[in-house]
Amino acid sequence: MMPDAINLREKLACFSEHWSPRVVAEMNDYQFKLAKFEGRFVWHSHDDTDEVFLVLAGRMGIELRDGLVELRAGEMYVVPRGVEHRPFAEEECHVLLVEPRGVVNTGDADGELRAENDVWV
Amino acid sequence: MMPDAINLREKLACFSEHWSPRVVAEMNDYQFKLAKFEGRFVWHSHDDTDEVFLVLAGRMGIELRDGLVELRAGEMYVVPRGVEHRPFAEEECHVLLVEPRGVVNTGDADGELRAENDVWV
Repeated sequence: MMPDAINLREKLACFSEHWSPRVVAEMNDYQFKLAKFEGRFVWHSHDDTDEVFLVLAGRMGIELRDGLVELRAGEMYVVPRGVEHRPFAEEECHVLLVEPRGVVNTGDADGELRAENDVWV
Repeated sequence: MMPDAINLREKLACFSEHWSPRVVAEMNDYQFKLAKFEGRFVWHSHDDTDEVFLVLAGRMGIELRDGLVELRAGEMYVVPRGVEHRPFAEEECHVLLVEPRGVVNTGDADGELRAENDVWV
């Protein structure tokens, strides 16, 4: 069976929860996940992997301990492994995340924003 | 030093060659590459890896031996490892490719469309 093209906008229309990534595709042992950000996330890091943020719509920022990265639609950023970061968005922002299968959204942190992992949309 | 956000549109403005991917970011041992497609590529496959196509602007298609995938802006497709494919675009199309570092654009094929690898923009 040949899979169809994955339409990111259609997939984004299928969920509304913030900070709760949904897997849309796998490439080798990596996953492409859609997420909706609004408000401030928790400080965390991923010790074993870099993490890609690609903004599809809206604006977001990533606080780092030594600075701030601002991202608009059509911009991407790679948070290096082990680097503490805290994403935020003043208004709802739609993001494509790329990271290895099994990465939990809150990394080394925990708390109520920890999302169930490997949820597909 | 903290790298800046990567603006894909600005990066796309920096080159004009077709079928000649330019690396814009690395995540672990994977690379994110921008490419401009126009015309028909060569039939090829990548025996060791899946390959992601994410269309940023325009339209493209991917011929498969048993079908055809059509992609518009905001759509993505994962060509599984080992699957023969031939990308094409009637008019110029801008694409984000994701694949492991070291993957050559023509895969197991060769010829004049084989691009220099690991060229950054």
